Amino acid sequence: MEFKISKDFIARIEQYISENREQELQALLHDIHTADIAEIMEELDAGEASYIFHILDSEKTSEILLELDEEIREKILKNLSPKEIAEELDEMSTDDAADIIAELPADMKEEVIQELNDDEHAKDIVDLLRYDEDTAGGLMGKELVKVNENWNVLTCVKEMRVQAENVQRVHSIYVVDDEGRLKGRLSLKDLLVTSTKTPISEVYIKKVDFVKVTTPDVEVARIMQKYDLEAIPVIDELGRLVGRITIDDVVDVIKEEADKDYQLAAGISQDVEADDSILDLTKARLPWLVLALLGGFVTVKVLGIFEPAMQNHGELFFFTPLIAAMAGNVGVQSSAIIVQGLANNTLSGSLWNRLIKEVLLTLLNGLMLASILFLGSHFLLGRGYDIALTVSISLITVIVIASLIGTFMPLLLNKFKIDPALATGPFITTSNDICGILIYFSIAKMILGF
Amino acid sequence: MEFKISKDFIARIEQYISENREQELQALLHDIHTADIAEIMEELDAGEASYIFHILDSEKTSEILLELDEEIREKILKNLSPKEIAEELDEMSTDDAADIIAELPADMKEEVIQELNDDEHAKDIVDLLRYDEDTAGGLMGKELVKVNENWNVLTCVKEMRVQAENVQRVHSIYVVDDEGRLKGRLSLKDLLVTSTKTPISEVYIKKVDFVKVTTPDVEVARIMQKYDLEAIPVIDELGRLVGRITIDDVVDVIKEEADKDYQLAAGISQDVEADDSILDLTKARLPWLVLALLGGFVTVKVLGIFEPAMQNHGELFFFTPLIAAMAGNVGVQSSAIIVQGLANNTLSGSLWNRLIKEVLLTLLNGLMLASILFLGSHFLLGRGYDIALTVSISLITVIVIASLIGTFMPLLLNKFKIDPALATGPFITTSNDICGILIYFSIAKMILGF
Repeated sequence: MEFKISKDFIARIEQYISENREQELQALLHDIHTADIAEIMEELDAGEASYIFHILDSEKTSEILLELDEEIREKILKNLSPKEIAEELDEMSTDDAADIIAELPADMKEEVIQELNDDEHAKDIVDLLRYDEDTAGGLMGKELVKVNENWNVLTCVKEMRVQAENVQRVHSIYVVDDEGRLKGRLSLKDLLVTSTKTPISEVYIKKVDFVKVTTPDVEVARIMQKYDLEAIPVIDELGRLVGRITIDDVVDVIKEEADKDYQLAAGISQDVEADDSILDLTKARLPWLVLALLGGFVTVKVLGIFEPAMQNHGELFFFTPLIAAMAGNVGVQSSAIIVQGLANNTLSGSLWNRLIKEVLLTLLNGLMLASILFLGSHFLLGRGYDIALTVSISLITVIVIASLIGTFMPLLLNKFKIDPALATGPFITTSNDICGILIYFSIAKMILGF
Repeated sequence: MEFKISKDFIARIEQYISENREQELQALLHDIHTADIAEIMEELDAGEASYIFHILDSEKTSEILLELDEEIREKILKNLSPKEIAEELDEMSTDDAADIIAELPADMKEEVIQELNDDEHAKDIVDLLRYDEDTAGGLMGKELVKVNENWNVLTCVKEMRVQAENVQRVHSIYVVDDEGRLKGRLSLKDLLVTSTKTPISEVYIKKVDFVKVTTPDVEVARIMQKYDLEAIPVIDELGRLVGRITIDDVVDVIKEEADKDYQLAAGISQDVEADDSILDLTKARLPWLVLALLGGFVTVKVLGIFEPAMQNHGELFFFTPLIAAMAGNVGVQSSAIIVQGLANNTLSGSLWNRLIKEVLLTLLNGLMLASILFLGSHFLLGRGYDIALTVSISLITVIVIASLIGTFMPLLLNKFKIDPALATGPFITTSNDICGILIYFSIAKMILGF
């Protein structure tokens, strides 16, 4: 049931555009979902995309604007007048409209706001603009259905009909007092099955989950997931109901947060996509590489210290990449599992138990790996028993320490309120490279003496 | 507004349990959300957790069961009779109940099903059990509100009141024909604002998104995210409406999928958590480490080939971990960005454009890194210009090739329907280690001659 964009389809659209066949294009796009039209526009060049945008009605274009990649949206908005942009925003919900305005250049913002048609809508949007985008205030929309605790069900239903006109999806009906403070909620289901004469105060549920405008967005996501909520009301400093957040907004937050952790683990420091510009991609990737390179200098320096080993035990140097890689791999595994536990809030028990468990686990893995390495070095790679023993003992030691660093580092960062995902990726592989090589040659020196 | 579990609180609960103060415990837990009670139970030992479970009423315990970690849930279910389990399931929605039954040992399943009280509920649950858990059929629930296209709004509202009794949250009202085939939907909002005499056929929306019972769960998640849906109906092979999937079920799929990619990138092969047993964690981690170790053998072998270099240019060996690490880092960055693009469906354009872009990007990064390496090797590490030049040229070559492998590998895997996330992590760092070292020493041999 999902629409699949084919190359042929894109080619046909490009042809229609070049031949200016407006009506056929409108007919072709008529039954296609706006999310799919946005994807089609991303396959076209900026001029063609703008053409399509102009032949569709504003109900569709406002949805398309929201579905587009930021980059392409920017290009299309640039070709629109403040009045035209305002027309698009009039069709949007308050939170979406506020997000679009926040992206506009400073001088455009005010002009667009003044062109907004509906005063109530404009007021709500301006209101939303003052919240930080990473907070509940930045996520919430103003569209909600609220009733006064002093009404009865009949008044309530009448009022709701009016309010529902402006609300795309009715999630919950919130109950407030005369000062607008959140008191509880009414479920739609209760409303379907309750007689119209009942006073609201008798039917509403006094227990209601809520967040404050200043609650961080990831916290909102965690709470909604944990308590399995589809919408959550937002209150201000005085306890007044000022907005609501729906689960679809939170899905984006969850996805972004998971993507960010993944990127950090891979050594990419900003929220970039494969289709971003080379400059953006460089900015996201180069800093980590420079850090890793500087770490590499240290490994060169460390190996230099052990130069005397080259005379009688040069083969030790053949094993450095192996030892370093194993240290890196074990470190990343250990840290990843902690980072994820922290992100999902599934860590329980004390730090000591965790470290002891990690050491046991790594010793178990280490013993097996060291046995393979011992046998492999001797029989497969033809090295002497002394070398085989040296590298095997070093391997166990190195990976136990690597796993301890990997476990400890994200916990430490988290303690200091730094994103623990920073600890994975190039950061941990580099520091484990250095430690690993230092330990390896120190052990070799003790066993072989050079 | 979120409840925070303190150590003191846990201590108090443990004390109450040991002193058998049932009523005080009930009072203490009365106002606490079931998700929080589940978290509290995870902090206690199995006996204490069971104690708490037994003093709460079944409305709460059924919710708690769903919130608990699988491991602890298993322990608690083991202490319950089939009849007791069935009582818990009677309180659950069909999809949740089916999930719990699927976890039970084979011999228990049938006994529990026979103890279910409500025949309709039991039939629905048994129905759900036959679907694969990774499909829309496995995700969906049977609770939905459906009306016949031949009814009018009045009949509809009456019927809905009856149906709504069994439905926790009414998302959409689905419209079916006499054969039960999905025809369209009615929005709750429309229902609020439409007169009761209108025939359904005049008000319902004929365009409705849906998935089939066999659609994979990740596909369902992608569609619901893309089209911004809070619920989606599920149809069987004959087009009949058989269930619905809500966004909260899909949030779990999205989260799990993102977590899985992250774990693969970190070299962890199963869905494990920090609190899983050492054996489970070993099974998830050891295979990758063995793979990396075997790759390490190859690097030892490769370095052995270049042993003659040791005589006059032994310092080359000091740089191997640096070169290998840089190859690994660049490879992981390149592959991660492709893996994420594939997962989020944000890749557009041709393969060639992508490879060319990646090469340009890496050349840009490579030139800067090579300059730093050249200057650093000479001035910081005191190496001659010949060595500095050799390692710098090698670095550019190695990371360009590493980035190409990193870009190409996930795309290739994806083509063959293998999870592209496999390409990141130890797999790519190991293969890049080998390639990197081989290229490095080959270039060194050409420049320095040994």
